[in-house]
Amino acid sequence: MKSLDNEVICVASRPAGIPSAENFRREVRAVSAIEQGQILVRNEWLSVEPAMRGWLADAGNYASVRVGDVMRSLCVGTVVESAASGFGEGERLMGWFGWQQYAVVEPGAVVQKITASDLPPSLYLGVLGLNGVTAATALDKIGSPRSGEIVVVSTAAGGVGSCVGQLAKALGCRTIGLTSTPEKVKACHEEFGYDRVINYKTDDLESALKAACPDGVDVYFDNTAGHISDAVMQHLAIGARVIVCGTASIAKWDPRPVGPRVERILLTRRARMQGFILFDHMDTYGSYVGQLEAAIRSNRLKYREHVTYGLDTAPGAIEQLYRSENLGKRLIRL
Amino acid sequence: MKSLDNEVICVASRPAGIPSAENFRREVRAVSAIEQGQILVRNEWLSVEPAMRGWLADAGNYASVRVGDVMRSLCVGTVVESAASGFGEGERLMGWFGWQQYAVVEPGAVVQKITASDLPPSLYLGVLGLNGVTAATALDKIGSPRSGEIVVVSTAAGGVGSCVGQLAKALGCRTIGLTSTPEKVKACHEEFGYDRVINYKTDDLESALKAACPDGVDVYFDNTAGHISDAVMQHLAIGARVIVCGTASIAKWDPRPVGPRVERILLTRRARMQGFILFDHMDTYGSYVGQLEAAIRSNRLKYREHVTYGLDTAPGAIEQLYRSENLGKRLIRL
Repeated sequence: MKSLDNEVICVASRPAGIPSAENFRREVRAVSAIEQGQILVRNEWLSVEPAMRGWLADAGNYASVRVGDVMRSLCVGTVVESAASGFGEGERLMGWFGWQQYAVVEPGAVVQKITASDLPPSLYLGVLGLNGVTAATALDKIGSPRSGEIVVVSTAAGGVGSCVGQLAKALGCRTIGLTSTPEKVKACHEEFGYDRVINYKTDDLESALKAACPDGVDVYFDNTAGHISDAVMQHLAIGARVIVCGTASIAKWDPRPVGPRVERILLTRRARMQGFILFDHMDTYGSYVGQLEAAIRSNRLKYREHVTYGLDTAPGAIEQLYRSENLGKRLIRL
Repeated sequence: MKSLDNEVICVASRPAGIPSAENFRREVRAVSAIEQGQILVRNEWLSVEPAMRGWLADAGNYASVRVGDVMRSLCVGTVVESAASGFGEGERLMGWFGWQQYAVVEPGAVVQKITASDLPPSLYLGVLGLNGVTAATALDKIGSPRSGEIVVVSTAAGGVGSCVGQLAKALGCRTIGLTSTPEKVKACHEEFGYDRVINYKTDDLESALKAACPDGVDVYFDNTAGHISDAVMQHLAIGARVIVCGTASIAKWDPRPVGPRVERILLTRRARMQGFILFDHMDTYGSYVGQLEAAIRSNRLKYREHVTYGLDTAPGAIEQLYRSENLGKRLIRL
C-alpha cells in the first residue's frame, strides 16, 4: 500500500484556561505502514469533549496530552487495513484515534466494535458513547436513584446531562434540570422530559430550588461545580448522593478556588459526594451501551447532535463547548 | 414509693458558639411516680460529647435540645423500679437518661442492657459506647480499609480517633494520627500504636503529610474539618474514602465558612466524602459492641477516661472538651 497523506490537528501549546484554536496546529504527516498487530483506521467522526480541557492541562492531571502529539479524541472510523487478529477490513470501530484523518493503532485503542447497522454510527460518540455511558454508569453506580426520588442535573441539556435526566425519569424519579439559555430550557422540557427546569442565569437559583424540591434533593448529578453546586448542596436531603462528574463552571484550579465548606452539610444530611471517571468502569461499558441501544430503538431516549464539517473546525470546538454555543453532543464529520 | 428529689442540669440558654457553664442551670425537681411501661433509673455515669454542641445549636440542626429541658446525655445507671416488661430492678442500663440523678424513661430510651460483669460499666459510654461504636461502624461501613492501606485520623487521641487508629492498625493498615499537644502525641505513639503522629500545631502539616504518606491517603477519618482537613484532602489517593464524622475545628457554621473547593480533588482522585451519624446505624450497634468487648478483653484495644465527680462538673465540661483540656473519654461520676 502506497504512502497516504494524513491531515492531523496536534497540540501546539498548553492553554492557560479553556483551550482555544491557537493552542492547536494543523500538519500534514505521512501515514506509516502498519506493523504486525496494528490496524489502519480512516476516521469518519471525531468527538469534542469537555474533558479535553483536562487532558490539555499541565501536570497533576490524570491524563495529560503532550505538546506536539495529535490531539486525543474518541472517533468512529472504518478499518482500511488490519494486521491485528480479530479486526477485518471494512469493520467500523469506536476508539482513541485522535483528531486526524487516519490512525495507525493497536487493538487497545479500540473501545468497541460497532455492529449495529440500524443506528447512526455517530451515536457511539454521544448518547451511545462516553456521554451516554457516563450518564448511565455514574447514575446507576453512584447515584442509585430509587423511584420517587428527586434527581437534580446540572448542564441538563448537555450530552451527559440530557441522558441522565431521561434515565432518571425512566426510573420513576422526579427530574429537575439546571441550564442556561431559553433554547436549552425548551429542549429540557420538550425533548428531555424534565419535570422542572431552572435557568440559573435568569432565575433566582435559591428560591427556584426551594420551590422545585421542598423536600430536598436525593441525587445531584453535577457537571459544573461552582456557585450552581453551592446552591444545590444547601438543599440536599438526608442520605443524598452527589455525583461529581465535571467542573465546567470553574475555569482555573490553580490556585485552588474557595467556596462554601461542605463538611457540615455532608454530616448533618449523612450525604455522600463522590468523583466519577468513566475510565474506571470500562469493564461494564458494553452492558450499559446495550441498555442505551435498547432505549434508543424503542424511542425512550432522545439526543441531539451538533455537527460541524471538516478537520479545520476542530481547533475552535472546545472553546465553543465552554461558551454554551452548542446544544447536544459536539461532533466533527470528516 | 415516696417522692425523691432529683438534681438536674437543664438548658438555660442557647450558646452562640461552644456551650459554656452559663448556658446551663441546676435545678431540683421531684421525681414523678412511674406509670405503666416506664422505668426509674438512678444514674451512675454521665457522658460529655462533642455532639452536644450540635444538640444545643439552634434550628436546622438534626436534633436540637429545647431550652428548659434536662440536658440530653447518654448515661449508665441502675434500674430502681420498673413497670416495663423486660426490665427488672437492679439491672444496669446504658441509655438517654440525661444530666440528672434520676430518670423516668420508657424502654425506647435504653440503648443497651449491660450484662457483662467483667468490664467496667463506664466503658459503655466510651470505648464500648458511642465513641467506640462510631469508630467501628464508620470505619467499617464507610472507610472499608484494606490491609496495607494508609489511614489518617484527626483528633487521633480522642475517644473516637484513638479507637479508629487501633481498629485500622489491627486490620493491617498503616495509621497516621493528627493531634495537638505533646501529651497527646505521646499517647498516640505509646498507647494507641499509630505508625506516625503529626502535631498539627507545631509541625508543618503539609510537609509532614507528604513525608508520612508519599503514596497518598486511602482513608481519612475526619473529626475536625477546617484547615487540617484541607491539608489532608490534597493528599488523597485514587479511590480514597473520607469519613466526615465531626467538625470540631469549625466553631460557627452560620454564616457558612469558606474553604478550598473539593470538587476537583474528588473528581481526579475518584474519591468519596461521606457524612456519618451513628444514629442511622443502631441496627448494628450490638454487633459492633460485641467486637469491641472482645478486643478489650484480649487487651487489643486501649482507652483512656477523664473522669470528674459530681453533677456540678457537667455544665463546664463541653467547653473543656473543645479546649483540648481532656485526653480520653470525658465522663462524670455521680
